[in-house]
Amino acid sequence: MEESFPMTGGDGPYSYAKNSNRQKEAAESAKAMLVAAITENLEINKHNICPISNSFRIADFGCSTGPNTFIAIDTIIEAVCKTYHESTFVHNPEFHVFFSDHVSNDFNFLFTNLPKDRSYFAAGVPGSFHNKLFPRASLNLAYSSHALQWLSKTPMEVTNPSSPAFNKGKIFYAKAVEQVCEAYKRQHEEDLASFFGARSEELAPGGLVAILMSGREDESSPSQVSLGPLFEPLESTLIEMANEGIISQEKLDSFNLPIFSPSPKEIKKIIQKNGCFEIVRLEVQPRTLHPMITLQQCRAGFENIITKHFDDNNNNNVIIDVTPVLL
Amino acid sequence: MEESFPMTGGDGPYSYAKNSNRQKEAAESAKAMLVAAITENLEINKHNICPISNSFRIADFGCSTGPNTFIAIDTIIEAVCKTYHESTFVHNPEFHVFFSDHVSNDFNFLFTNLPKDRSYFAAGVPGSFHNKLFPRASLNLAYSSHALQWLSKTPMEVTNPSSPAFNKGKIFYAKAVEQVCEAYKRQHEEDLASFFGARSEELAPGGLVAILMSGREDESSPSQVSLGPLFEPLESTLIEMANEGIISQEKLDSFNLPIFSPSPKEIKKIIQKNGCFEIVRLEVQPRTLHPMITLQQCRAGFENIITKHFDDNNNNNVIIDVTPVLL
Repeated sequence: MEESFPMTGGDGPYSYAKNSNRQKEAAESAKAMLVAAITENLEINKHNICPISNSFRIADFGCSTGPNTFIAIDTIIEAVCKTYHESTFVHNPEFHVFFSDHVSNDFNFLFTNLPKDRSYFAAGVPGSFHNKLFPRASLNLAYSSHALQWLSKTPMEVTNPSSPAFNKGKIFYAKAVEQVCEAYKRQHEEDLASFFGARSEELAPGGLVAILMSGREDESSPSQVSLGPLFEPLESTLIEMANEGIISQEKLDSFNLPIFSPSPKEIKKIIQKNGCFEIVRLEVQPRTLHPMITLQQCRAGFENIITKHFDDNNNNNVIIDVTPVLL
Repeated sequence: MEESFPMTGGDGPYSYAKNSNRQKEAAESAKAMLVAAITENLEINKHNICPISNSFRIADFGCSTGPNTFIAIDTIIEAVCKTYHESTFVHNPEFHVFFSDHVSNDFNFLFTNLPKDRSYFAAGVPGSFHNKLFPRASLNLAYSSHALQWLSKTPMEVTNPSSPAFNKGKIFYAKAVEQVCEAYKRQHEEDLASFFGARSEELAPGGLVAILMSGREDESSPSQVSLGPLFEPLESTLIEMANEGIISQEKLDSFNLPIFSPSPKEIKKIIQKNGCFEIVRLEVQPRTLHPMITLQQCRAGFENIITKHFDDNNNNNVIIDVTPVLL
């Protein structure tokens, strides 16, 4: 059963809209790469642009609530227009942009904040990107930024006390035993395969998928993932809370962040197995200089998942209790 | 400046979702008409169905939050499939359904309640249906139910004390002087013309627009509109509140419901002037037997507009004060 972990909605101090600068900076540093990927590889011709409507369809999978998704869409449209100017097409197409995320994403907030002077028609598409969300061959460009490291669920084995992959007392696979890493890797393989399976049906011929995601730089063991230290303050806080009896040890043991950072080789293998896509560019970007995740960023990304897991007894203090340690 | 008057969101006791039975009954009694209009008039051929995606696109303009929109979409899809079976097409298309309403509509609620077993891909489209919301020729069927009687704004003249169309002490044009009716009629003409203008660009050749709206049965004066008695309890309550000084007389005088019920002839004239549509069916349905609007229905439809107009002094009691009179 797939789970849903939306970012924190609205525009409060802990909202994703107010705390997604880290993702924005990473996307900005990848902007040149995105533009080059589009101008060099997007095939536009009568076989993929619907001749009736002459509309070009773009989807952002895992768009959250903005503003990063709006910035990315502007970059994409600019690059597509450049490609049109260099083609035999006389006119630019009309752009139809689909903002897609979990059903529980704050679409009301996203819609209220759509840029007033946008050069495209906008729609919101609720649902998991591990499933098909659009009719066959109806998209020209699929984009996803900082979303595909999220798994559809925590791998079952890591919360099963009788499994060798049981990740007792930890909330992530960093520095974990190999079996835990393997369980995470298998889940990620399955999820990324579902993503590409769905997109291979939705993309029109000549279409492009552009993905920016958190990954490992090389083929070292997943346990050496560089994201590890980011989650340590949250892990220590939860351990401390379990020690103080605020949350149960069982609750802690059954909580694992459903996030995985794959290596370039792992990604390549999954795409090649799908067989519908040719990899035209696969690059590793150096990590930006943010040593630690802030409390605000932590809440923007994890408030929903933590609340969902720990608050079955209406223990609404869990998030607040995390505050002092993270600050 | 266009205004936005969304229905009351969520699923509370005064929500549109819980208080739209009247609209549902009217839509149900029009179901046969809708099915016949589609099976007899929808032209499906290679010139209007995008050959690349083979997808059939339906939009509900003024969808609100459900459940009526979901019921209508099922009826429409059933009728389109029937048309396909009787055509030379081998396979049914994939259906892409666009739920469209004001930006301030409760899309979060709508998305959460999308039918799990639906036979279509769903998207939400925020924006006013008086503007273009889709790329050129990208829709095959446009539907709108109980939405087009809403004007884009209250006609200016009726709230202007120095105009002969000033509608002093009243909140609607029923039983009003002819100048008030004419002002409403002009605004409606302008709004319906914008609606058809936008749809004529968005519809693919052979497409269909199906509209169910509140109207007058014949060509009698708008002041005789049968909707009139529905709003009398609200009007008396507001007058009483003005007399008691709870709201100011100026506030009352500047409040008019932006709703107009046109006659068949008026609708015909606007469509013929647009020139892009052929009227294949224009029928008057007898009114269903609901003599009065309930408090719940009143709040589902008018809570937002009343609050917006009267609550500039944080006078949050306005709606509550309406309660006893309407009950």
